[in-house]
Amino acid sequence: MGFDAYETIGFAAAVLTTIAFLPQVYKTWKTKDVSSLSLPMLILFFIGIVLWLIYGFLKHSPSMIFANSITVLSAILLLYFKLKYGKK
Amino acid sequence: MGFDAYETIGFAAAVLTTIAFLPQVYKTWKTKDVSSLSLPMLILFFIGIVLWLIYGFLKHSPSMIFANSITVLSAILLLYFKLKYGKK
Repeated sequence: MGFDAYETIGFAAAVLTTIAFLPQVYKTWKTKDVSSLSLPMLILFFIGIVLWLIYGFLKHSPSMIFANSITVLSAILLLYFKLKYGKK
Repeated sequence: MGFDAYETIGFAAAVLTTIAFLPQVYKTWKTKDVSSLSLPMLILFFIGIVLWLIYGFLKHSPSMIFANSITVLSAILLLYFKLKYGKK
């Protein structure tokens, strides 16, 4: 199996859209400021990522399972922060 | 071609993670409040989605091109709002 430029781009895309949410989780955790985060966004995103994770398992795709496992954790944390800190 | 449960789940996942950002764009546009949005998140996410879009073109995947075209627009708008309203 040689170098696959297409899959390298796909892999870079997966890494970036996975790690993208980590600075958001960190910022929200530090500041407890959730005022400008949209609750419908967080709910739709969470359900969507859970479905991507299920799809990854069904397709036996380790990359999808790995990437979406991290993203689902980010989504759960952001949703939790929003519900916890959004009350005030 | 019969009913493909796997692809139905993948398609639902794509739809949800695509439309998820629309309420965020709407909320940010209405409130001009970007205080709790992470700039590194928006930058990494934008680059990641651009790569997904390129990947979709390379793989000739209409679903990926369609979904990521909408998401890249959301990402551009959120990044624009963050840079514009984050100054204050």
